[in-house]
Amino acid sequence: MIEHVTPEVDEGRFPVKRTIGDDMVVEADVFTDGHDLLGVALLYRRDRDSEWRDMPMTCLPNDRWQASFPVTELGRYRYTVTGWVDHFQTWRRDVIKKVDAGQHVLVELLQAARLIDEASRRAPKADAESLKGWAEQLGLADGPESGRIQLALNEDMAALMAKYPDRSFATLYEKELVVIVDREKARFSAWYEMFPRSSSGKEQHGTFKDCEARLPYIASMGFDVLYLPPIHPIGVTHRKGKNNAPAGGMHDPGSPWGIGSQEGGHKAIHPQLGTVHDFRQFLDKAKSYGLEIALDLAFQCSPDHPYVKEHREWFKIRPDGTMQYAENPPKKYQDIYPLEFESDQWQPLWQELKSVVLYWIEQEVRIFRVDNPHTKPFVFWEWLIREIQADHPDVIFLAEAFTRPTVMYRLAKLGFTQSYTYFAWRSMKAELKEYFTELTQSEVREYFRPNLWPNTPDILTEELQHGGRPAFMARFILAATLGANYGIYGPAFELCEHRPREAGSEEYLDSEKYEVKQWDIERADSLKEFIGLVNHIRRENPALHSDGSLHFHATDHDQLMCYSKSTPDGSNVILVVINLSPYHTHSGWVQLDLDSLRLDPDRPFQVQDLLTNAFYRWNGPRNYIELNPLSAPAHVFRIRRWLRTEQDFDYYR
Amino acid sequence: MIEHVTPEVDEGRFPVKRTIGDDMVVEADVFTDGHDLLGVALLYRRDRDSEWRDMPMTCLPNDRWQASFPVTELGRYRYTVTGWVDHFQTWRRDVIKKVDAGQHVLVELLQAARLIDEASRRAPKADAESLKGWAEQLGLADGPESGRIQLALNEDMAALMAKYPDRSFATLYEKELVVIVDREKARFSAWYEMFPRSSSGKEQHGTFKDCEARLPYIASMGFDVLYLPPIHPIGVTHRKGKNNAPAGGMHDPGSPWGIGSQEGGHKAIHPQLGTVHDFRQFLDKAKSYGLEIALDLAFQCSPDHPYVKEHREWFKIRPDGTMQYAENPPKKYQDIYPLEFESDQWQPLWQELKSVVLYWIEQEVRIFRVDNPHTKPFVFWEWLIREIQADHPDVIFLAEAFTRPTVMYRLAKLGFTQSYTYFAWRSMKAELKEYFTELTQSEVREYFRPNLWPNTPDILTEELQHGGRPAFMARFILAATLGANYGIYGPAFELCEHRPREAGSEEYLDSEKYEVKQWDIERADSLKEFIGLVNHIRRENPALHSDGSLHFHATDHDQLMCYSKSTPDGSNVILVVINLSPYHTHSGWVQLDLDSLRLDPDRPFQVQDLLTNAFYRWNGPRNYIELNPLSAPAHVFRIRRWLRTEQDFDYYR
Repeated sequence: MIEHVTPEVDEGRFPVKRTIGDDMVVEADVFTDGHDLLGVALLYRRDRDSEWRDMPMTCLPNDRWQASFPVTELGRYRYTVTGWVDHFQTWRRDVIKKVDAGQHVLVELLQAARLIDEASRRAPKADAESLKGWAEQLGLADGPESGRIQLALNEDMAALMAKYPDRSFATLYEKELVVIVDREKARFSAWYEMFPRSSSGKEQHGTFKDCEARLPYIASMGFDVLYLPPIHPIGVTHRKGKNNAPAGGMHDPGSPWGIGSQEGGHKAIHPQLGTVHDFRQFLDKAKSYGLEIALDLAFQCSPDHPYVKEHREWFKIRPDGTMQYAENPPKKYQDIYPLEFESDQWQPLWQELKSVVLYWIEQEVRIFRVDNPHTKPFVFWEWLIREIQADHPDVIFLAEAFTRPTVMYRLAKLGFTQSYTYFAWRSMKAELKEYFTELTQSEVREYFRPNLWPNTPDILTEELQHGGRPAFMARFILAATLGANYGIYGPAFELCEHRPREAGSEEYLDSEKYEVKQWDIERADSLKEFIGLVNHIRRENPALHSDGSLHFHATDHDQLMCYSKSTPDGSNVILVVINLSPYHTHSGWVQLDLDSLRLDPDRPFQVQDLLTNAFYRWNGPRNYIELNPLSAPAHVFRIRRWLRTEQDFDYYR
Repeated sequence: MIEHVTPEVDEGRFPVKRTIGDDMVVEADVFTDGHDLLGVALLYRRDRDSEWRDMPMTCLPNDRWQASFPVTELGRYRYTVTGWVDHFQTWRRDVIKKVDAGQHVLVELLQAARLIDEASRRAPKADAESLKGWAEQLGLADGPESGRIQLALNEDMAALMAKYPDRSFATLYEKELVVIVDREKARFSAWYEMFPRSSSGKEQHGTFKDCEARLPYIASMGFDVLYLPPIHPIGVTHRKGKNNAPAGGMHDPGSPWGIGSQEGGHKAIHPQLGTVHDFRQFLDKAKSYGLEIALDLAFQCSPDHPYVKEHREWFKIRPDGTMQYAENPPKKYQDIYPLEFESDQWQPLWQELKSVVLYWIEQEVRIFRVDNPHTKPFVFWEWLIREIQADHPDVIFLAEAFTRPTVMYRLAKLGFTQSYTYFAWRSMKAELKEYFTELTQSEVREYFRPNLWPNTPDILTEELQHGGRPAFMARFILAATLGANYGIYGPAFELCEHRPREAGSEEYLDSEKYEVKQWDIERADSLKEFIGLVNHIRRENPALHSDGSLHFHATDHDQLMCYSKSTPDGSNVILVVINLSPYHTHSGWVQLDLDSLRLDPDRPFQVQDLLTNAFYRWNGPRNYIELNPLSAPAHVFRIRRWLRTEQDFDYYR
């Protein structure tokens, strides 16, 4: 019986995710009736290979078996488990007990001779001959028993027998499971979202050249992904004006998500930004600053998009013959026509959309942020991502779906590399702990890679509206340390832009979605240096490069939250203590789970605050914390364990 | 998308278990891309029916849907889930929002006309005509909009439309799941194990007639299942003597598990017990006392069993031509030959074993306690139980497998109605809580019905060896209240038999397995009245008739354990507080989870100790407990809620 194989998502229907270089640990319950000993192997192969490789599994308590294999290549691997009764090992275990009890085992020696003889038929020539020799000696009825016992229990022969078990009755687990291996950025990335048209620093529409001039600024803050809202021509029909004014904006620049005009659609570039050549140049320049460009995939059309004229069959027509615009009743978005993915002409449409992605891949783009994937068919995304990654396994898709958990998780299972989360709306200690425990400690971690955004052009949370600079700092630290992947929408974020369009709204006042903005990025109160410091800490500390080790520690105060992340070998441990209130200084006691930190309860240890470079010597689990949000809302400690006795003086590492 | 259907065991590979009269609650995550409203139905049928029945499912938060169906017949039912996009309900939700916002909906009315017209084609004549009429009226372009809106949102029409959704694109969950419906005794039973040969009260071998004389005694203690170790002829070759003495016992009666002699095998009765006729008479008499007889299925043979001569092919032959006896190296059981279930002749063997079960069913036996099922193939049990229950769905099989959890759980999944547990060896509070939480609050509860035995003829735990009468009382209360199914091996248990064969052994000294015992059942220190009282409390309190409601409450003392069970409607609640130490009086505070007990924190409540009939008035979660093991190791409280104000005086129910 082979059951409860882990990792396995939805009965093997969906792949799990890893990044290159990971050790893929697989476990299974493997057992049989009776008392026979088993042999168990993990089978694995790259998807494109036909040969399985074998990795012997080790028995843990209670019939649990474990092994691992390294994933060293991008793309898909398959794995499964096989098990068999090992008659020789069973025989050996029993005979050792009998011999130890002084019993005669003459008949058992004959049994061994038979088993060894059988094994010799499975072995290649040299080993076969050795085994045959052993079998014959054991089968002789006339040697003294003690000598033959010694022969039968010979360790070399046992090792040889272990190479040729009888697997003809082996059980093979009924499913082949799949792991998708992504590049490291799928697991560890810091995103910066910027509207390229606001990059001139002046009133005028920015260009890719202006964007190039912004690169040193963005790189200095330590980001590695620069995500641009759609860069395509913008429609004029029903174009929205400032603050989403209906039919306002013939002279406004319009929303970048109103894609398509006479100047082209999803494969074109907004003329005011520049040419494809400019874009390629910008991309190269960004690369030289360690910044990778992410584009927006928003599969929808303005009424002026070329598709609307050329492919009326790709849209929904209302009973009165007009084209169906986007709605969220009673809201109407007459500047947007959704594509009809399930029309009779779905195949040419899907191929066209695939060609859009391939077009930008040709322009060297490898990261796509996908707009509202939950309003398009699940099956489309599964197909598209699979098709693209088959030839381009380095492509990353980030799902921007703010909807119910079932749908967000399903999109991740279907192939999205990373996913937006509810992080922006989780502000209390209990809900943060519950949500991030679910994301990082449950099965969800196998397929859903959270990307944490404290703000986006659509989301200015109440906390940021009211909490001032301390709130921006606290939310930034949370995003950057709870999430190995996170992002901010800037310069709004680092400049602490906090004015909503109206009370109760999460929309920005004078939102950049509808106008060109001038940001004073040199403002003295900018968080740019703080952000740079935190991103530096992230890069230097591998504990922050993944989410699986996240562990919450108790505190005696509702506004003080404490959590840690560690590398698997425990060599790097980061401990964050944060004051969740932007308004008041709070103090209290943390109660560390020393085991999880691999700290010896009987030895002092040092914590180094990487934000301030202050050092504290702590002792045992209970330690005092006081945090003033106006100076620093959090400690980001690196834990340094006690290293030597104080023959000279204390060392920590 | 339909996923996470519950209950579902191992991807639907195994059935779940319920008892007759239960409400079978089914839940599933059902969702789709986009924002359309769904219709969802639970489908169910008896296994032998071909028609599915439909039960609409209700939407809980986060895309979870729920419905239930009653299981009113023994045997197997099937169930699954289907879901579809409900275009009319979606249309209606959106139009209501638009109308409320004062928008024109002329085009939407045309859409409705089309949907209603389509529905009319799915409806039988009368409803079809009504719908057609509505569709025509809505389709008219000339009526005033407000009147047509009223028509379109008519509640009667919505109800009619709900009857004829378009299910042609419905998703059907890919699996049909199975629930096995057993009779009530599968869930709630009190077993008494007795060696019939020790029933004479004298030195001589007891008979079924002697057993009849014992029935009033057993019934007075409140048991409802009387389980007899094997009643077949016992082999003489290598028969074991007193205290398992090897080759001791030509003049000893031998172990009842050494089945088979010249006088017959598994279908024969030991001549000293009586005839089949005597057995049938005893069975009838037992029935009149409310006692059902359970027999032992021990599929193994003494060397003198008729099978050994007649069916040598059903046994394993060693290389020297001798027959393989049972072993647990270095222990040898030469009085027992295991059957070889996987020989070439497995089919006649399996059929013969099935005929053994059918033979005893013919003698009106409906409960079988199965000896060591884990040493026979899993596939055999799945086949046997399925075959028997197809014609006899009232037959109960209890698995006596004391082995690793994976194997015990697998046997339960394969069909065993009830299962022995590790209860005998769980004595500390933490391990009792952990184990019974796993058994009653995890998925295990769907297929594994625990049967708790504080002792068996093979198991005299250290606790019972040393703890005296208080230990027997405490272990009895635990078994009878933690487990809706439990049993004791008597009269050893009620007479507090505690002498082991040797220190460190769990075997009884002078074990009844190897000799006829004389038990003085009238001894003044017998627990028979205490047992009778507890069984009476069990019968009177439906909270104790099942295990799913088990809930542990905190106490501030390691030796004081507190737990409750409740009926689903909360009308009957039993709260047990027990002193786990048989040696010392302990006192401390319990901290009740009032929510789980449906108690109002602001009102006092009464607890009635059903063992002593003492009443206490409690207030809030925190209450003082003091238990002296020498008088009563536990309280078994019934909780009586505050009923009326004290206009006259307090009432509780």
